[in-house]
Amino acid sequence: MSLIVQKFGGSSVANAERVFNVADIVTSTYKEGNNVIVVVSAQGDTTDDLIDKAKEINPNASKREMDMLLSSGEQISVALLAMAIEKLGYPVVSLTGWQAGVLTDSNYSSSRIRKVNTERIQLELDKKNIVIVAGFQGINRYDDITTLGRGGSDTSAVALAAACHADLCEIYTDVDGVFTTDPRIVPEAQKLDEISFDEMLELASLGANVLHNRSVEMAKKYNVNLCVRSSLTRAPGTAVKEAVKVEGMLVRGVTKDNDVARVSLCGVEDTPGKAFRVFQMLAKKNINVDLIIQSIGRDNKKDISFTVQQTRIEETLELIKANQDVIGYDDLSYTTEVSKVSIVGAGMVTNAGVAAKMFEALYDAQININMIATSEIKVSVLIDQGYEEKAVKAIHKKFELG
Amino acid sequence: MSLIVQKFGGSSVANAERVFNVADIVTSTYKEGNNVIVVVSAQGDTTDDLIDKAKEINPNASKREMDMLLSSGEQISVALLAMAIEKLGYPVVSLTGWQAGVLTDSNYSSSRIRKVNTERIQLELDKKNIVIVAGFQGINRYDDITTLGRGGSDTSAVALAAACHADLCEIYTDVDGVFTTDPRIVPEAQKLDEISFDEMLELASLGANVLHNRSVEMAKKYNVNLCVRSSLTRAPGTAVKEAVKVEGMLVRGVTKDNDVARVSLCGVEDTPGKAFRVFQMLAKKNINVDLIIQSIGRDNKKDISFTVQQTRIEETLELIKANQDVIGYDDLSYTTEVSKVSIVGAGMVTNAGVAAKMFEALYDAQININMIATSEIKVSVLIDQGYEEKAVKAIHKKFELG
Repeated sequence: MSLIVQKFGGSSVANAERVFNVADIVTSTYKEGNNVIVVVSAQGDTTDDLIDKAKEINPNASKREMDMLLSSGEQISVALLAMAIEKLGYPVVSLTGWQAGVLTDSNYSSSRIRKVNTERIQLELDKKNIVIVAGFQGINRYDDITTLGRGGSDTSAVALAAACHADLCEIYTDVDGVFTTDPRIVPEAQKLDEISFDEMLELASLGANVLHNRSVEMAKKYNVNLCVRSSLTRAPGTAVKEAVKVEGMLVRGVTKDNDVARVSLCGVEDTPGKAFRVFQMLAKKNINVDLIIQSIGRDNKKDISFTVQQTRIEETLELIKANQDVIGYDDLSYTTEVSKVSIVGAGMVTNAGVAAKMFEALYDAQININMIATSEIKVSVLIDQGYEEKAVKAIHKKFELG
Repeated sequence: MSLIVQKFGGSSVANAERVFNVADIVTSTYKEGNNVIVVVSAQGDTTDDLIDKAKEINPNASKREMDMLLSSGEQISVALLAMAIEKLGYPVVSLTGWQAGVLTDSNYSSSRIRKVNTERIQLELDKKNIVIVAGFQGINRYDDITTLGRGGSDTSAVALAAACHADLCEIYTDVDGVFTTDPRIVPEAQKLDEISFDEMLELASLGANVLHNRSVEMAKKYNVNLCVRSSLTRAPGTAVKEAVKVEGMLVRGVTKDNDVARVSLCGVEDTPGKAFRVFQMLAKKNINVDLIIQSIGRDNKKDISFTVQQTRIEETLELIKANQDVIGYDDLSYTTEVSKVSIVGAGMVTNAGVAAKMFEALYDAQININMIATSEIKVSVLIDQGYEEKAVKAIHKKFELG
């Protein structure tokens, strides 16, 4: 008998029919003799509808009250799923985040899970109940409701799997698993049977929309057996594991990311600690910097370029302008007309030719490279927007991933 | 500085405009230097919409999961009201039932409040926050969410007022207060400036839809100063108090109730304890019996007639049929084609002529009386359905309540 955590997103429970599809998956797993914990997001558009209601009343509502409001969405979906499972004749109980013992910090709207107090869940599992838990939410030390922000339900599922020592954590989605690239762009894209945590982390941070990074990080930290699979086809999916034996295929996936803006600081004084100061400022505001290039100094000045998410560009520019004196630069420019294309693979570090092969693919396709950044398991390039799909196709073909 | 509890029903917060109307009432009270606790119901049709969603999935869903589902409705409205008050620039915090310390028994969907743990509310009041509490809900000893059933938010408000030793508990509604009878039937109906708990209890149980009985009972028990007033006109309303000085007006109100069914048991053995057995059975199932008539025995047999709510008639008949042997009767009959019309007034008990005057009014209007029941402060009669409005008008006029 295993303990299995299953997570279903909002589209999987969008209407009564889909709720019963989920109920069927859950009860099938239970029937096979497993203990089952199910994590559910809010139904389809519920969260957006609630946000609209809030905006009508107060566009600047406090995050605390937003979390109070939004957390009702998952409360509705867990109750409905529990009712569907009752209808199928299985013992079930639904729990909100706080009832499930999900304790978070007080960073409303993007809280991090501090701890899961599993007592109640364990009690319900001992009673042979299927346990449905509201994803995306928890409570802080003041007993106020918090939400986990983007991808929060994935994180809830992995946290519960870790805390309850689950044998498997299945993330159900509307695709069959993790692919070598987006099948909507490259029809020949292949589903991967397995992938390592590190590769998944790179893919996720590079725009593959399957799993949120925080959940993968947590799974890696607590060594949770993750699996991404489709709630529609119910095919085996992709296992995300600690160590994956690489056989031949050095590059595991190609991704693109359009949510990128490039910021350039020209004429920064070439004294130690300048770059450090810029990035420390951005980090304090939780603005993630991705690619960074620093030109070699000349006339005692250097240029620093980096990328941030497009949604954070306003904030980034304001911050830098406000601190022109401290940073010391001549010129500030930016563009959002760029895209990032990346290749990911654990074997890459030991094979110097991989990056060159990628650049060759782009050169053959007549695509200009603006910036380059590499890590042990990825190579990312910044290119002009509009060329990203062409780039993905060219690279995917070059590495024979199809 | 006083502590005031204000309760607003679902129609008072049905849309953004009305939410701001409530926010205005609340902040005006706060501005005058009062501490304010606000109890809110779910917005307009939210509860009905949620019930529809549940029915689509499982018409026989457990009450526990129904409570989990429905309690999300008030969570939404407290958050939205808090956001409106934030917008007006006042310090505010919203609390769910469990956060507000509302502890109930485990009778899902119609729980009773066992206790209110006021620690959190007190903390927020000390911080000078306006405290918005979700009505209608609490948690039981297992930390499961419960709802209080019909009129639950009134009860929440009174319970909080009692527990926090509030100086006043204002129940806001869409009418100006308690009237001598339904103004939609009798336009000359007068608003009462004050009424006693006992009179209010009788009026409520007799069909006046202003306050739910449980809340009045609780207010009487803990001597909470209640006030019923309109959230639209904001007129002073009707004070509901322990002792009301009766000046001249013996009869305080006339009510009708169509949710009545009459059940008749004919040929019941005339031995002690028979009636007791019938009503004990009904009480065990929580079926409230109202008017009771027992005929004088003849041939060692007697007839027992009584009224119950129409919604409970099926259950009542089944129960009696299943126990024909135990009760011992010849014939069982019932009708739902009846209405109850009542007069209520604290001074009535000392004035024998009141009942006679009521009967005279009905006689003058050619309305036949089926059953009569009297208490210290009320007289109720059962009449054929269809005549109730005529009866109310005639009685209202006879007692010169206009």
